[in-house]
Amino acid sequence: MKKFEVFNGDITSPKGFQASGVHIGIKKKKKDMTLIASDVLAEAAGVFTTNKVCAAPVLVSKENIKSGKIQAIIVNSGNANACTGEEGYQNALKITKVTAEALHIDPADVVVASTGIIGVPLPMDIVVSGIKKAAKALSPKGGEAAAEAILTTDTIEKKIAVEVEIDSKKVTIGGIAKGSGMIHPNMATMLSFITTDAKIKGDFLQQLLKTTSDKTYNMITVDGDTSTNDMVCVMANGMANNEALSQEHPEVEKFIEAFHYVNEYLAKKIVQDGEGATKFIEVEVINSRSFKEAQTVAKSILSSNLVKTAFFGEDGNWGRILCSIGYSGVEFEVDEIEVFLGNKEKMIKIVENGQGTGFSEEAMEKLLKSKKLKIMVDLKTGKENAKGWGCDLSYDYVKINGAYRT
Amino acid sequence: MKKFEVFNGDITSPKGFQASGVHIGIKKKKKDMTLIASDVLAEAAGVFTTNKVCAAPVLVSKENIKSGKIQAIIVNSGNANACTGEEGYQNALKITKVTAEALHIDPADVVVASTGIIGVPLPMDIVVSGIKKAAKALSPKGGEAAAEAILTTDTIEKKIAVEVEIDSKKVTIGGIAKGSGMIHPNMATMLSFITTDAKIKGDFLQQLLKTTSDKTYNMITVDGDTSTNDMVCVMANGMANNEALSQEHPEVEKFIEAFHYVNEYLAKKIVQDGEGATKFIEVEVINSRSFKEAQTVAKSILSSNLVKTAFFGEDGNWGRILCSIGYSGVEFEVDEIEVFLGNKEKMIKIVENGQGTGFSEEAMEKLLKSKKLKIMVDLKTGKENAKGWGCDLSYDYVKINGAYRT
Repeated sequence: MKKFEVFNGDITSPKGFQASGVHIGIKKKKKDMTLIASDVLAEAAGVFTTNKVCAAPVLVSKENIKSGKIQAIIVNSGNANACTGEEGYQNALKITKVTAEALHIDPADVVVASTGIIGVPLPMDIVVSGIKKAAKALSPKGGEAAAEAILTTDTIEKKIAVEVEIDSKKVTIGGIAKGSGMIHPNMATMLSFITTDAKIKGDFLQQLLKTTSDKTYNMITVDGDTSTNDMVCVMANGMANNEALSQEHPEVEKFIEAFHYVNEYLAKKIVQDGEGATKFIEVEVINSRSFKEAQTVAKSILSSNLVKTAFFGEDGNWGRILCSIGYSGVEFEVDEIEVFLGNKEKMIKIVENGQGTGFSEEAMEKLLKSKKLKIMVDLKTGKENAKGWGCDLSYDYVKINGAYRT
Repeated sequence: MKKFEVFNGDITSPKGFQASGVHIGIKKKKKDMTLIASDVLAEAAGVFTTNKVCAAPVLVSKENIKSGKIQAIIVNSGNANACTGEEGYQNALKITKVTAEALHIDPADVVVASTGIIGVPLPMDIVVSGIKKAAKALSPKGGEAAAEAILTTDTIEKKIAVEVEIDSKKVTIGGIAKGSGMIHPNMATMLSFITTDAKIKGDFLQQLLKTTSDKTYNMITVDGDTSTNDMVCVMANGMANNEALSQEHPEVEKFIEAFHYVNEYLAKKIVQDGEGATKFIEVEVINSRSFKEAQTVAKSILSSNLVKTAFFGEDGNWGRILCSIGYSGVEFEVDEIEVFLGNKEKMIKIVENGQGTGFSEEAMEKLLKSKKLKIMVDLKTGKENAKGWGCDLSYDYVKINGAYRT
């Protein structure tokens, strides 16, 4: 039994949050600026791209989140403000300043994020007036517009909200996210913003976000490229008035479960909307010596261009799956491993004793027409399990990324 | 000045080697079996796939090459004899036995290689009669047919020969290779066979092959997948009658250079013929703290699907290149790194101070139409350099690997 309720909400569902999504003119027509603000200073935590080349807004936001408290998140899409040098850094700082002025808060309490083209300076006149527009548009019902305005090549909005009872108080968690190329473990071009009215201790929040991200956002891959701009940022404003959550709180597991659900949901939505993706693939690795090894095997399968193109071609190529496990670097006995392929309804064992099982081609063909597929690998080296999510590699991925100028 | 001569030859150019390439019926029409034999027992060395799931012929060949001596190499294409269990292993053993019988040599002096589809048992009746056919067809002019019969989805034969003078004797090195998908550092679906009439010490040959492979075959990538079947195998029969080569031989550098040339040539040919490739990309990383770091950066760029699709789209996307350097895991200062993009005639600086240089779009557009492109990265962290080679990612790659059943 789930201890939380999922409902059709977003980042403005928790108490004391307002948001807006507006068109400011970086993009031609689509909304391109999102603002999220808490009524009060909130506990905050963030995880950021591990790319050595990290964008100016990431540098500024990392600095601002160090205090453990922020009150607003400002995001532009259409321009990543990455590889823009000192000017880019100053621009990111200026964005926090202008946002703070508009909201009458401290610039150090603002997180800034950007996504879009790399290496082009931000059009700051547009951005400055845009921030004012976004601030004016703030609304307790602005979550949906906010979800829309952070998108780039995404085709659908990604948003969710859940409700959980803690200390007999209603606690709400909301989230929005964007993908959709350059998605790979360790923060890829991906933005995710989570709000909650839970009261929660700062260090516990940071630790929770880290462990959750490692099992959700860091276990998805679209193309193996880790971007310069990724971040996941969470704000917890305490307005639900529960007893402050920490590892010691008697009901903390309920919150952890709900928080994990929100982040896993958004992570999966990101891969489902991967550039050119026609199939969603879940990999579960079971009975591994360690959680890390299980993750490594899952990622190796999900990152293989040959596995990905096989799924695009609806080909049950177990040889490519086994091969991608083989070069993951993880130890296992080829003769003992078992691999299953299937969907929600049915799983077919495709590898046993290091060989194909001679499964029915017909059953497999039918199964591979599913939009959502699952691979399960039984390593038989231990007791740990891990999951990861990815998508196929299609003509459209090449088209979106290779021929977008034509 | 080159100390060796390249000429239009192959594995039967060195003294005392015969070869054949015949059609035996694993494939419908194309040649599918290659036999290479030395007149006398030869010093031998091999490097093999690092994939944990390694094919039966690899297991048998590793065992047979341990003695440091072999006399023949038998190869079938069209079926990889991988993931075929104990039956596959017994089949690989039988191939060495039948080959040995046909040539009146010891089965332990035979290396066996297979390439093609994974997980399907070899049709042994066809293979056995095929080996006899290949043995009958052996000829001192059989190198070209041999080069043809190892191909799978390759579009062109890959062969070369060079001549070098050692101890006033003519020493010849010949080679053939096949690609063309599943090509990635650490032995991908790639076979390369080198013959030489040089007299050379066994342990020196093994060490030379290892260091050369690390700089050639292990620095190419087509799709990042490392196969179950790869091997590079060299036979040196000593019939040139030079003083036995070792690190102490006064003219050893000449041989090393020629040997390196042969292997680099074949490695580059493999990526040029990568599945669906329309562009050949060389990456040179200079001024690195270590050779290994330089290699890591080169591979990271060459493996990026986003960089690869950008080249397919003839887009000078320096941001993606910089990004792929950023997630390589190698330390450098973003503000100091320089990146150049160009071809044989011209290199344009595209990144400086961590930013784009504002190069002429027109000049870049023209340059990107070249079939052979070069990226140079100046890390400015040390003195070491490395090179790697790859190709773009095209619709045809997806087609070849994803829709081959249609």
